[in-house]
Amino acid sequence: MNDRAQPLTRRSLLAVAGTLASSAALVGVASAQPVPQVPDDPTKVQGRLPNEIGDRSPFEQPRRIPSAAASLTPLDLLNGIITPSDLHYERHHAGVPLIDPSRYTLTIHGMVDRQTVFTLADLERFPSVSRIMFLECSGNSGAGWAKGPPTGTAQTLHGLTSTSDWTGVPVSTLMNEVGVQSGALWALAEGEDAAVLTRSVPVTKLMDDALIAYGQNGEALRPEQGYPARLLLPGWEGNINVKWIRRLKFGDQPFETREETSKYTDPMPDNSARQFTFAMEAKSTITWPTTRIGVMPGLGAWEVRGIAWSGRGRITRVEVSADGGQTWADARLVDPVLPIAHTRFLFPWTWTGTEAILVSRATDETGYVQPSRDELVAARGTGSIYHYNGQQNWRIAPNGTIANYYAG
Amino acid sequence: MNDRAQPLTRRSLLAVAGTLASSAALVGVASAQPVPQVPDDPTKVQGRLPNEIGDRSPFEQPRRIPSAAASLTPLDLLNGIITPSDLHYERHHAGVPLIDPSRYTLTIHGMVDRQTVFTLADLERFPSVSRIMFLECSGNSGAGWAKGPPTGTAQTLHGLTSTSDWTGVPVSTLMNEVGVQSGALWALAEGEDAAVLTRSVPVTKLMDDALIAYGQNGEALRPEQGYPARLLLPGWEGNINVKWIRRLKFGDQPFETREETSKYTDPMPDNSARQFTFAMEAKSTITWPTTRIGVMPGLGAWEVRGIAWSGRGRITRVEVSADGGQTWADARLVDPVLPIAHTRFLFPWTWTGTEAILVSRATDETGYVQPSRDELVAARGTGSIYHYNGQQNWRIAPNGTIANYYAG
Repeated sequence: MNDRAQPLTRRSLLAVAGTLASSAALVGVASAQPVPQVPDDPTKVQGRLPNEIGDRSPFEQPRRIPSAAASLTPLDLLNGIITPSDLHYERHHAGVPLIDPSRYTLTIHGMVDRQTVFTLADLERFPSVSRIMFLECSGNSGAGWAKGPPTGTAQTLHGLTSTSDWTGVPVSTLMNEVGVQSGALWALAEGEDAAVLTRSVPVTKLMDDALIAYGQNGEALRPEQGYPARLLLPGWEGNINVKWIRRLKFGDQPFETREETSKYTDPMPDNSARQFTFAMEAKSTITWPTTRIGVMPGLGAWEVRGIAWSGRGRITRVEVSADGGQTWADARLVDPVLPIAHTRFLFPWTWTGTEAILVSRATDETGYVQPSRDELVAARGTGSIYHYNGQQNWRIAPNGTIANYYAG
Repeated sequence: MNDRAQPLTRRSLLAVAGTLASSAALVGVASAQPVPQVPDDPTKVQGRLPNEIGDRSPFEQPRRIPSAAASLTPLDLLNGIITPSDLHYERHHAGVPLIDPSRYTLTIHGMVDRQTVFTLADLERFPSVSRIMFLECSGNSGAGWAKGPPTGTAQTLHGLTSTSDWTGVPVSTLMNEVGVQSGALWALAEGEDAAVLTRSVPVTKLMDDALIAYGQNGEALRPEQGYPARLLLPGWEGNINVKWIRRLKFGDQPFETREETSKYTDPMPDNSARQFTFAMEAKSTITWPTTRIGVMPGLGAWEVRGIAWSGRGRITRVEVSADGGQTWADARLVDPVLPIAHTRFLFPWTWTGTEAILVSRATDETGYVQPSRDELVAARGTGSIYHYNGQQNWRIAPNGTIANYYAG
């Protein structure tokens, strides 16, 4: 990759930037609303007065893309590490329940000394913890298993992951409170949605770093994130982080619910099925330039931007290639780099008008390196629909057109 | 403070928690909307389907409190370090202008070699930086200068501060681009609002860590935060972080604008006036329990919660007193503790039903300790309306009633 050693020439950059039609070219946001009446000179018009609740500029309308049972975060329109709450991805099996917080309870029972019913006020009263942490649906990026490269954007391909600042009570605190018995090895976590979603969780994880969260990004959970309270199992696949949690039942074996037998298992190349794949492995994707913008806005110096994350801890390195993975160079990670949180990376790159295949790969603190698609398929086959974390190639043609691309 | 060494007895805690009427007692949120029809059993009703943009639960309606030219963040309803964008405080002198990003420009001129007009796309194309940082109006907490203790909540007293994750281009990058001349010592920053707000900024600060920010909490700036671009001067009083910035003019002396002569100066006890007080000193306030809830919900173990911040760097310590400052103990700081960002603190405390005066004091990495009100008044007199950072006392009467309190 000859380009990588070439520093951004800031002065020459502006000469090229003049080819951009408008700022929309960089962020790719088409206004979803009619263009508002903008004063010719805003300094001659009294602006709107202070109000109780803010709203976006009419020129900025990022949106999730909803389907029957999920909606996707516009990763390629965002530039922070925390996802705005109203753009956090959704995934639910029977819709978002409406729950009255004053009637909400969490019951802990089974192999415990003191069966206990906690109100929301009980949960909020305990010593609290906060952590900035991503969630990711195990089905995220699943289109990568397809034979040909799927068409799509970073939003449609990878948008089932988001990061929030969560606040809650450690599950270990509640376990001490109820006196979990020594023979208890698993707990059944049950949600209060119409799917009554249930998953089995090892006691070791619950004792280690699990939370019952009631806070998200400084305020109450959003309804689609489990309001008023949910389970959080840092780094583990989304669906086991049971939303609207109403029950934890401790037992001595897994409960083998339908969500861990008929679903959320991974068929393997030897025809076995891998059950209980909990941790989400390291992944990354470039978010600019990608198919979101469709065509490169011009030649010259640009900043390649993206996010990386790992369910096993901190991202320690992100490398970027402009030649489809033949040569790599280190991207800059944006502080703060937090464990089990989206981490932004930035990479200076000059587009010379020839073919380029942009791809990123993440390394986490365990030393795990995000595999190429070929490496992933060699290990896992293509029978899975879950836990795809192969590298994402974005091919830029000599005419500037951007498309998804498989090396194979 | 005898209580401070007493650990939270978690089992006994729940016995007390039973006295709470509902979760509303803890957070003090009255629903601003009619109570919605909630199904008796949410598991029997299909929930709402995925959608493009999320919304809060109808039971959770935090709101800014607007006045003629400002609105206040509900600090006492929030529990994170980043303020939700629609609750970020506002302060503007002629309303919020409506600006078309495709017509936006930033002109840099004066003592520069190459006068340059930057479009928004130009700004977004440069190598970017992100930082999580608070802003605070210099008038925040100004009611503390009053003779008697003001009535109010953490929101109405201290709500002119908020924290966001900002993204933008370093001003130093733009200065290199235009070739700022060696004799230039100040720059005039001018906003495109109807007040055409202008402030003089030292070149040293612009070179050090200033940003032209176009991103806030992962997306575009909110209109009231300067959309599409604003100046950010980490740690400095809010109004000099010029919003809707359209011009930077370099010169060899301050421009003495009305915002730094008739306003935003601090009368001192010796009848001099202190001009150019830029950095916001360390401050903290308890956000729970406070006047927001009015009355303590019960006896027993509680977690005192609050935020601290300093314009000079990281918060290194927050101490809490339950006896009006006679004795202090260290609070726990919540990770991540970032420089020039709101930092959450937590403190276990048992209320025994006797009078308590809860107060916090912050120390920053420079060693500066937030003063008591008496100490602050001794140094500054009471002629100021800006830059109040005295400690905030919350008195809890034996009957549980909570009120603001001055020691003197």
